[in-house]
Amino acid sequence: MTHPILHGLRIVEVSAFIAAPIGGMTLAQMGAEVIRIDPIGGNIDLRRWPLAPSGTSLYWASLNKRKRSVALALNTPEGREIARALIAAPGEEAGILLTNLPASGWMGFDELRKAREDLIMLRLTGNHDGTGAVDYTVNCASGFPMATGRGGEPVNHVLPAWDIAAGLYLSTGLLAAERARRRDGQGREVTLALSDVMLASVGNLGYLADVAVNGTVRPPMGNELYGALGRDFETADGRRAMLVAISERQWRAIGKATGLAEKLAMIGPLLDVDLSTEGGRFAARRAIAAVLEPWFAARTLPEVAAAFEGSGVLWGPYQDFGQLLAEDPRCSPANPLFATVDQPGAGPVLAPGVPLAFSSNPRPEPAAAPVLGQDTEAVLAEVLGLSTAAIGRLHDAGTIAGPT
Amino acid sequence: MTHPILHGLRIVEVSAFIAAPIGGMTLAQMGAEVIRIDPIGGNIDLRRWPLAPSGTSLYWASLNKRKRSVALALNTPEGREIARALIAAPGEEAGILLTNLPASGWMGFDELRKAREDLIMLRLTGNHDGTGAVDYTVNCASGFPMATGRGGEPVNHVLPAWDIAAGLYLSTGLLAAERARRRDGQGREVTLALSDVMLASVGNLGYLADVAVNGTVRPPMGNELYGALGRDFETADGRRAMLVAISERQWRAIGKATGLAEKLAMIGPLLDVDLSTEGGRFAARRAIAAVLEPWFAARTLPEVAAAFEGSGVLWGPYQDFGQLLAEDPRCSPANPLFATVDQPGAGPVLAPGVPLAFSSNPRPEPAAAPVLGQDTEAVLAEVLGLSTAAIGRLHDAGTIAGPT
Repeated sequence: MTHPILHGLRIVEVSAFIAAPIGGMTLAQMGAEVIRIDPIGGNIDLRRWPLAPSGTSLYWASLNKRKRSVALALNTPEGREIARALIAAPGEEAGILLTNLPASGWMGFDELRKAREDLIMLRLTGNHDGTGAVDYTVNCASGFPMATGRGGEPVNHVLPAWDIAAGLYLSTGLLAAERARRRDGQGREVTLALSDVMLASVGNLGYLADVAVNGTVRPPMGNELYGALGRDFETADGRRAMLVAISERQWRAIGKATGLAEKLAMIGPLLDVDLSTEGGRFAARRAIAAVLEPWFAARTLPEVAAAFEGSGVLWGPYQDFGQLLAEDPRCSPANPLFATVDQPGAGPVLAPGVPLAFSSNPRPEPAAAPVLGQDTEAVLAEVLGLSTAAIGRLHDAGTIAGPT
Repeated sequence: MTHPILHGLRIVEVSAFIAAPIGGMTLAQMGAEVIRIDPIGGNIDLRRWPLAPSGTSLYWASLNKRKRSVALALNTPEGREIARALIAAPGEEAGILLTNLPASGWMGFDELRKAREDLIMLRLTGNHDGTGAVDYTVNCASGFPMATGRGGEPVNHVLPAWDIAAGLYLSTGLLAAERARRRDGQGREVTLALSDVMLASVGNLGYLADVAVNGTVRPPMGNELYGALGRDFETADGRRAMLVAISERQWRAIGKATGLAEKLAMIGPLLDVDLSTEGGRFAARRAIAAVLEPWFAARTLPEVAAAFEGSGVLWGPYQDFGQLLAEDPRCSPANPLFATVDQPGAGPVLAPGVPLAFSSNPRPEPAAAPVLGQDTEAVLAEVLGLSTAAIGRLHDAGTIAGPT
């Protein structure tokens, strides 16, 4: 097989920000042709921070890799007609729209279906009733900020986790709908609400059941695990390491690698707990930490890494984004996930592809994002069969725009 | 269409903890038949906290809804032979294995392929080189704990976001591989490393490019947004609200709903910033907050909610897990995502289904998780065609186990 796994699939994306762009990019990085349509001049996310010195958004570039970019005057009937034609273009593997913008008017499912009856349309909304919500306003309601940190005040996590999960639900849903269409010929509208992604996750992780069955609201516990042994430790060089033992094998590995097995074993009779169970180690976590703290405090992070190498100890270093890029060999071209790409307006950057690898298909090399409108002419020629003259007229009329 | 979207697809899952179970559950909740195989007595996650008073794990139950459970003596050749037969059972839509356990020995792809050449096998590892990692040890290295909170010490987020994303990459990858097999008849091994999920996400969100291009390591900013207006505010009743304005429309809505538009407009000339831009509002965020703080402090959370109702203001309440379940109408059977199910060992719990809805297919009602071994006999009869007598002999020999 010489083609990436999704070669041949064509998706039109009309999107902004994170969730839908991640869904589309995931499929693009698996080989699908993903055509992102934006208004001329760009959508609301085109200049989102962080920016490169050139003004290019590193945010936009990072979220739209390996897509094709088409810029259309979506505020005119002519521009919308071209968008509709791209969305409804023929082809067994085409006719798929992914959006997180308000899907009303010309973008309504019933309206677009007039142009292609078997259209698949994925639509991300804020709430299931159609009202608005974004990652930040969903996250505050999730319960997690109240359970993060040491208490006293809620702590928002900085990772837009709900957007990422929503993007991956969209890629899952898109492939499920395309699978079904291949069997029954039917199009589908697939809807997903960002707050439902949060609610499903809170439920799937057992937090709702814990409230309902036990009346327990999980309190914030700093960097400690709940129900098993795990915590961060400071090292001699002012760094930190996260140490975890979920299985008994991992617990024994800690004693062996640190040479503290005998001292750790004394904690069982000391506190009358069974250290061979997760619950016992959790109950004894403060005493265990008291024994381990001096061991970490006497060693630099590289010395800790050396002691744990090949030991079966489950641990990881704390790194900021700079240390991640500078120090972690997993975050380098040595990891097949990455390649250095030349991002227009930004220069060479380390860019990831998709983390999935398929044994019979090549994983596309990581690629840069387009500049806005980069592929307008090529897509109109290839997908709609427009002539150079027709494209020129649309350009002159301000209906389409090339790279800016 | 009377069937759920993935009706007919059969997946065998050999898993533990969060990531692979979420991948399998997502597909089960879309209508696939997902058979989770565990050792007799259960896998390492069977008693993971939180527990119901009965000892039933609410964690396990929440992560394995709508699956079938088969318990086999996987430490014996006979038990492994049955597992292999289930994995390799005939059927165009079968022959798919999802696992996050070490896939060596009988579980190796090349070994299992001897039983079914077109096997699709999804395998989650810790790191791309096969070494171990879990959500906690991946997260500490991601940079996010160093950018979360107010600084001074790293703050782990409590949400196992990398596990959730990994589960959804697995569901995406599984459908992509099954799509490809349908076209070319080939099986595939699909691999995914948990740390690659983290690394790809950090890159996709622009953090790596910001370091590489600007040398900027995003600092912790408490609950403030980066590059746009957003922060939490305390209310008169000791609650908190998250307020966000990304678009200019959302910014104007805040002025209108609070009656503070004139005061807010004064901040532009006061600080020489252009409040019609995201960057300007970000630069002026402290002054904007100073104007808004007394407005929130004078109102209870319900009064804030009433003032913002229908106003176009983008906001959300902070809630702990108990308040989420007690107060949020989205987290109730009024939301089609949810239903109250009777979970064995736990009683009635509010359980989510999958957040995706497909217009031409019913969304399966949320369902409970099985008890361990609940479906052993039925699956062996249906999938392998074993007789009652044969199943009885396997039971007597200790090769299989029913519900315990």
